[in-house]
Amino acid sequence: MRYVNGKAEDLKIAYIGGGSRGWAWGLMSDLAAADDMSGSVYLYDIDLEAAKRNEVIGNKVKELKDCKSPWDYKAVETIGEALQGADFVVISIIPGTFDEMESDVHAPEKYGIYQSVGDTTGPGGLIRALRVVPMFEEIAGAIKEYCPEAWVINYTNPMTVCVKTLYRTFPEIKAFGCCHEVFGTQKLLGKALEDILQIKDAQREDIRVNVVGVNHFTWLTSAQYKNIDLFPVYREFALKYKDTGFGEKTDENWMNKFFDSLEMVKLDLFLKYGAIAAAGDRHLAEFCPGSWYLKNPDTAHSWGFKLTPVAWRKEDLKNRLARSERLYKGEEEMVINTTGEEGVQQMRSLLGLRDLVTNVNIPNYGQIPNLPLGAVVETNAHFCADSVRPVFAGALPESIYPLVSRVCGVQELTVEAAVTRNLDLAFQAFCMDPNMEIGLDEAKCLFDTMVDNTKAYLTMYER
Amino acid sequence: MRYVNGKAEDLKIAYIGGGSRGWAWGLMSDLAAADDMSGSVYLYDIDLEAAKRNEVIGNKVKELKDCKSPWDYKAVETIGEALQGADFVVISIIPGTFDEMESDVHAPEKYGIYQSVGDTTGPGGLIRALRVVPMFEEIAGAIKEYCPEAWVINYTNPMTVCVKTLYRTFPEIKAFGCCHEVFGTQKLLGKALEDILQIKDAQREDIRVNVVGVNHFTWLTSAQYKNIDLFPVYREFALKYKDTGFGEKTDENWMNKFFDSLEMVKLDLFLKYGAIAAAGDRHLAEFCPGSWYLKNPDTAHSWGFKLTPVAWRKEDLKNRLARSERLYKGEEEMVINTTGEEGVQQMRSLLGLRDLVTNVNIPNYGQIPNLPLGAVVETNAHFCADSVRPVFAGALPESIYPLVSRVCGVQELTVEAAVTRNLDLAFQAFCMDPNMEIGLDEAKCLFDTMVDNTKAYLTMYER
Amino acid sequence: MRYVNGKAEDLKIAYIGGGSRGWAWGLMSDLAAADDMSGSVYLYDIDLEAAKRNEVIGNKVKELKDCKSPWDYKAVETIGEALQGADFVVISIIPGTFDEMESDVHAPEKYGIYQSVGDTTGPGGLIRALRVVPMFEEIAGAIKEYCPEAWVINYTNPMTVCVKTLYRTFPEIKAFGCCHEVFGTQKLLGKALEDILQIKDAQREDIRVNVVGVNHFTWLTSAQYKNIDLFPVYREFALKYKDTGFGEKTDENWMNKFFDSLEMVKLDLFLKYGAIAAAGDRHLAEFCPGSWYLKNPDTAHSWGFKLTPVAWRKEDLKNRLARSERLYKGEEEMVINTTGEEGVQQMRSLLGLRDLVTNVNIPNYGQIPNLPLGAVVETNAHFCADSVRPVFAGALPESIYPLVSRVCGVQELTVEAAVTRNLDLAFQAFCMDPNMEIGLDEAKCLFDTMVDNTKAYLTMYER
Amino acid sequence: MRYVNGKAEDLKIAYIGGGSRGWAWGLMSDLAAADDMSGSVYLYDIDLEAAKRNEVIGNKVKELKDCKSPWDYKAVETIGEALQGADFVVISIIPGTFDEMESDVHAPEKYGIYQSVGDTTGPGGLIRALRVVPMFEEIAGAIKEYCPEAWVINYTNPMTVCVKTLYRTFPEIKAFGCCHEVFGTQKLLGKALEDILQIKDAQREDIRVNVVGVNHFTWLTSAQYKNIDLFPVYREFALKYKDTGFGEKTDENWMNKFFDSLEMVKLDLFLKYGAIAAAGDRHLAEFCPGSWYLKNPDTAHSWGFKLTPVAWRKEDLKNRLARSERLYKGEEEMVINTTGEEGVQQMRSLLGLRDLVTNVNIPNYGQIPNLPLGAVVETNAHFCADSVRPVFAGALPESIYPLVSRVCGVQELTVEAAVTRNLDLAFQAFCMDPNMEIGLDEAKCLFDTMVDNTKAYLTMYER
Repeated sequence: MRYVNGKAEDLKIAYIGGGSRGWAWGLMSDLAAADDMSGSVYLYDIDLEAAKRNEVIGNKVKELKDCKSPWDYKAVETIGEALQGADFVVISIIPGTFDEMESDVHAPEKYGIYQSVGDTTGPGGLIRALRVVPMFEEIAGAIKEYCPEAWVINYTNPMTVCVKTLYRTFPEIKAFGCCHEVFGTQKLLGKALEDILQIKDAQREDIRVNVVGVNHFTWLTSAQYKNIDLFPVYREFALKYKDTGFGEKTDENWMNKFFDSLEMVKLDLFLKYGAIAAAGDRHLAEFCPGSWYLKNPDTAHSWGFKLTPVAWRKEDLKNRLARSERLYKGEEEMVINTTGEEGVQQMRSLLGLRDLVTNVNIPNYGQIPNLPLGAVVETNAHFCADSVRPVFAGALPESIYPLVSRVCGVQELTVEAAVTRNLDLAFQAFCMDPNMEIGLDEAKCLFDTMVDNTKAYLTMYER
Repeated sequence: MRYVNGKAEDLKIAYIGGGSRGWAWGLMSDLAAADDMSGSVYLYDIDLEAAKRNEVIGNKVKELKDCKSPWDYKAVETIGEALQGADFVVISIIPGTFDEMESDVHAPEKYGIYQSVGDTTGPGGLIRALRVVPMFEEIAGAIKEYCPEAWVINYTNPMTVCVKTLYRTFPEIKAFGCCHEVFGTQKLLGKALEDILQIKDAQREDIRVNVVGVNHFTWLTSAQYKNIDLFPVYREFALKYKDTGFGEKTDENWMNKFFDSLEMVKLDLFLKYGAIAAAGDRHLAEFCPGSWYLKNPDTAHSWGFKLTPVAWRKEDLKNRLARSERLYKGEEEMVINTTGEEGVQQMRSLLGLRDLVTNVNIPNYGQIPNLPLGAVVETNAHFCADSVRPVFAGALPESIYPLVSRVCGVQELTVEAAVTRNLDLAFQAFCMDPNMEIGLDEAKCLFDTMVDNTKAYLTMYER
Repeated sequence: MRYVNGKAEDLKIAYIGGGSRGWAWGLMSDLAAADDMSGSVYLYDIDLEAAKRNEVIGNKVKELKDCKSPWDYKAVETIGEALQGADFVVISIIPGTFDEMESDVHAPEKYGIYQSVGDTTGPGGLIRALRVVPMFEEIAGAIKEYCPEAWVINYTNPMTVCVKTLYRTFPEIKAFGCCHEVFGTQKLLGKALEDILQIKDAQREDIRVNVVGVNHFTWLTSAQYKNIDLFPVYREFALKYKDTGFGEKTDENWMNKFFDSLEMVKLDLFLKYGAIAAAGDRHLAEFCPGSWYLKNPDTAHSWGFKLTPVAWRKEDLKNRLARSERLYKGEEEMVINTTGEEGVQQMRSLLGLRDLVTNVNIPNYGQIPNLPLGAVVETNAHFCADSVRPVFAGALPESIYPLVSRVCGVQELTVEAAVTRNLDLAFQAFCMDPNMEIGLDEAKCLFDTMVDNTKAYLTMYER
Repeated sequence: MRYVNGKAEDLKIAYIGGGSRGWAWGLMSDLAAADDMSGSVYLYDIDLEAAKRNEVIGNKVKELKDCKSPWDYKAVETIGEALQGADFVVISIIPGTFDEMESDVHAPEKYGIYQSVGDTTGPGGLIRALRVVPMFEEIAGAIKEYCPEAWVINYTNPMTVCVKTLYRTFPEIKAFGCCHEVFGTQKLLGKALEDILQIKDAQREDIRVNVVGVNHFTWLTSAQYKNIDLFPVYREFALKYKDTGFGEKTDENWMNKFFDSLEMVKLDLFLKYGAIAAAGDRHLAEFCPGSWYLKNPDTAHSWGFKLTPVAWRKEDLKNRLARSERLYKGEEEMVINTTGEEGVQQMRSLLGLRDLVTNVNIPNYGQIPNLPLGAVVETNAHFCADSVRPVFAGALPESIYPLVSRVCGVQELTVEAAVTRNLDLAFQAFCMDPNMEIGLDEAKCLFDTMVDNTKAYLTMYER
């Protein structure tokens, strides 16, 4: 790496999971728009062909006329080639296939347990964690070996579990987890501002929030736009829309249905607890006791959100594979700079090119005084040259402490179970999940089934 | 108060709830056996007649030939008379009648929620808390006015809520909550010692334990008898009895049935989490998710414990009233020194007559680093002359943190709701209870019903 | 206040100490350059004439052609008029006259105690604190009464003592203390970058530092320019200049002599402790044991700095009064935007117009885990809309903990003594000062003399 | 080890420094009086002959008619033989000879620095620490190898440094440091009780105190005898004796002169800070700034204490060698049970034979919230079967925080310097000592001289 005229050149980014049909293209787009950074992206994936395809796709981007920064893409066969000398490591992998996810999400339904996402918490999130932890131990070990000074950005879910595994395996790692869910809530606050006070066009970044919690179960304890405290505004908004929900309901295409919501869970939680729940409703619902919002599909629908079936994800993958084909063959062009993700902004900050304060997932050094030290939590942090430091977020409000401390503890326990390859302990964590309101015998049957369904990825566990 | 020849004389004890037919007599007995302390006990009760009756009963004790220490008993009409100049205050009241408790315990059954005790946690414990908090605010205020330097011993349930209310109302109060549940587990460890290692007659006090948790959901993270680590012993014991339970099963009279258990919940929790759950199974079960041990009465029975019906308590009260009559008329004599409670030992320590380390409920000053500072927790504490200081207990083990932090938080939130007379917030705490695995609408119906059933005691709440 | 087209208009700033001949003009200049903010500045000063003169001077600024933002200035007779409805409060006062400061700085010389500044620590800083604390109690009380929601920026020394007094008097106050000393060290790091690596023109703001300590005794535990770790660079620089000092030594005019230094104290402290001392050498020396750098004037000179005599300050005041006359009469024009102070940037951030991370003095919430909670410390903080939150700075390095914890404690104790009007306790703090290496009897004589010299300002203390 | 009829038999105690002419005999005496414990003491010493002599002396004790418990003594040639299978390890060594101590104590006098003891803090304490740390690293390593489960009791000074080194080398060690200085202050409180309130014969153990600080600079924040708060009593006592001192002044023999004091430092510190300094005046004086009580020998005498010359220690050693000869030959008999040390009581508690709460030196887990976690501090702790847990002591009072935090930090820094064999860092710690009020150049000369004087013991340090 070197700096020339205020620009960082010759950067090396290692992309673990670089065969992705989605995130990878977003990163390509964001990098192409970053006119003060340039270099190479090394794509590593257990599916080498997918990585090679993305190499071709990525290298086409520099020919686009909007491209402000030409990056080289290179697929590599080993993780070591990708990591050696890297300045940044991006991790965005899928632990297993959608077949495993199908078990994660749908096997519990037989026992009346419904999950709207199933990748973070709940029985599905936990079994996914059992698969992902050994992978992240391996990745952390390779980072320690090949590029211990690199900054590591994780996008993989379950976020808390992945980041914790990185730190547990290699405590000196410079890693953080990055998630856009809070941004969505900032945007919703902007809409509330327009709806209630007729103030338009407030930018997301100008809505300043204090973030506290764990990933996908984050809460805002303050929200401010210029001199306007958004809490009374949001209260009025919540009271207005709590029964009907807020959001466009017409002309939806089928794709969006499974990701959109009417924000009713979010509004309900705010009115109850006085803090703003700041993730998508599908995620929030999964962290609450199962009988609240996920008793059955109808309950979910009555709260304005849908359960995302894995069949839909499989179908969607087909579309993404088709798009991959088009991009690969040059039948479709990449559109530059539209993702709204902050990964590239964070890199820019770590390079000393600008400051940034945004929400990330890192271990608790005291930024949330009433959660255990060392547990991975989500709060704001200050990014600057080679530095990420948490901003003091304050204690979890008393009203949400019981909900959040519990799930924080379950995530920590899950990592402990996975790292020690202890399925008995994993089952204990499984039973403590808020969504698991079934008897112990049934829970055991379900756990065994789910482990069995995904056993190809769990060979390292003693049974 | 004065000291004469190593004895403390002229002590004044104020007994709030002094009309009791049970605890009061135990205290009388323990005091009569305390040969280095003497003085007067002032009995205050909203049922003045009951207090007067206990005055008579208490004053008979000094005529018994086993009586080593003659105490005077005096029923008073106002709390001020009782408290004025008191050295100690004992609080042991029942918030409401068994009719209210009948609602607490049995109203939830309509929604499939079963409670084995119903006085500490669960929907019943919470509604009881709503009744008891205003009473404890009043008591704390009176202590502040009449005897701010007195030591205050609380026996009332829900323990955590009561102690928190005392400290919240009068932060300088010298108060602690006292509970015998841990002692039972120490005794069980003694039995395990005999059963597994054939070591007989280990005294409870010689089984040294480290206590961590909240009242009725306490855990031991170490247990030692002389040079024997009791954890491997208890593990062998637990494996031996986990399926059949441990305990006498013959010749039980009907009375005991509702308090005894086969310790199966305790053994199960130990085998799962590696820490020794240290309260009666009936209490432990209520702090776990409802579907585990309390799905229905059969589940409870299969785990070797019974649900205590309030009808039984009402019947038992009749027996106690009859005994009161006999004691009052001199038809029955008090038996001295048999309770095994530590209240009198604690007083002795606070008077500087001996040291004592035992478990109590006080605010968290850091004795449990991963629970919130200020939350009322149960750990060991060192008692000596005019001093109670917590012993450092260490962090909750990771395996039980999700269970315990949650209920700790719910108890704190319940006090907040009650002190601010906020029934909406109380309902939020209600919904977060581990035993409440029902939908939000049903929960609201149940809450409203239970509040309505007990409204005579809830007039200070806005509805 | 209102926002129009992205600008904040109709702001009200209350300036306590608004008759100043120095700081006030700097603020006028900075405000005139702030094109996205406008409003009024209310000048309050115990010297009303001085405030009125600054009203005239300030109102001339808007006529300057460089003036981007016209502000109105208004001298007021009462603090209430200044504070009522204020959005911001700026406090920059001098506690007493230079006659009192003459005693603070020079009286100790009779006992062999030399002070290079004498306004923050040392015997002079402590006696100054005794004068300033009652003033700040009054100011805090008035803020509580007139504008409890205003943001309060303090520039007055002793900084730590002043900020602590504000929070102690009005715990909900939104206040912070602002000091430019760290900036000077950032600039020095820039010079080291040029000297050692020939990298020119690094901007102060681009040299990112982690700040830890108490005001005027702040330390950097990391310093980074883009991808360059500045610690090895600064080490090379320190080794190069430790014996000769670094800095221009020719053509100095007499004014600068007393503020400039050859940075030798700073370099020495870095080489000893491995953390970068980040304040002017004159300040740093006063926080170290007196025999190190301030044994006598020659010792100070040998370390490349001078003791600032109060006679010079008196002379300088004459020059400033003369300049005041010229500005007032229009014989001299204000020059806009040259101060380098961050006050106006901080206001802009608090108004939600931009983010800022910079060093400030606020109570310790855990940003420095090994200093007492609640003690006023200096670290970075994140400024955004209506929010200042500390950035986690980490523990003081073990090597400087003994030096810093001591002075942190002395400052806290000084406030306690002053707030309780307890001169005995003040004397204990006085004796604990690092610069006080004299016997207890001599110390008492000195203390009594200094109190007596300044008694006109200490009438509220019992003696 | 085994338990028979409530007694612990076949214990193995390893005594490191077992050739001692003093402590060893005290231990023999205390063990002989302990009728519920018996076993063997393995004596290891670098002076094997001295250990062998003590073997003979120790084995004579069991023939005494007062001997309640016969212990076997055995001198061994290697530390491994002593430690293998030990239940307890006692460490009481002298790091170097009195020649080294002569340099420690008297070399600084040339620079006007006087030390009353010179074994804990001050320049002498620090150089002693440099010698002792490598020895304790070796001992800790051997304990880890031979008896990792043994309880380790340290009596060696500098206490804080020794205990820290044990934990730093072997973090799982079960070690604590034991010191009788607090006992002396308890006794003084008993004398105050008699002097002021005419209450006689209060036992030391019945004067309950809360201890906070670091070894030899410990403070009491409460002291209670039965129902009497001793703070007002001690205040009256302090006011009465502050000018004249308290203590027997006639018929002293020359030996005692160097250990006795008139308690004037202790009374002065109490009147200043409101907390009771609880160590001998000779120790307390050394932890305060040098100019306070140790400016020169006359200052010390005016405060009622003497500086202990090492010449006296050498003379005293001759007497002890002579006594050794008499004991060895049977010309003198040991007197049983008179030491007042608590080591044997602590062993008894750790064996589960009785509870004990007493003051010890262990790492800070939060028992003193405003000192750094992990720093070795002195507070009360609860001893019971195989367990030592700190009692929550509370924060250092604000008035003494500057004094105590500083010396706590210097001790930690000294260990860091010694463990890393870094003499430059050791010199930095040396300069920060409260007693070092000399210029940096002089300090360097002194340090180099002292290191050189003792170089035979400092060969492992790079110079």
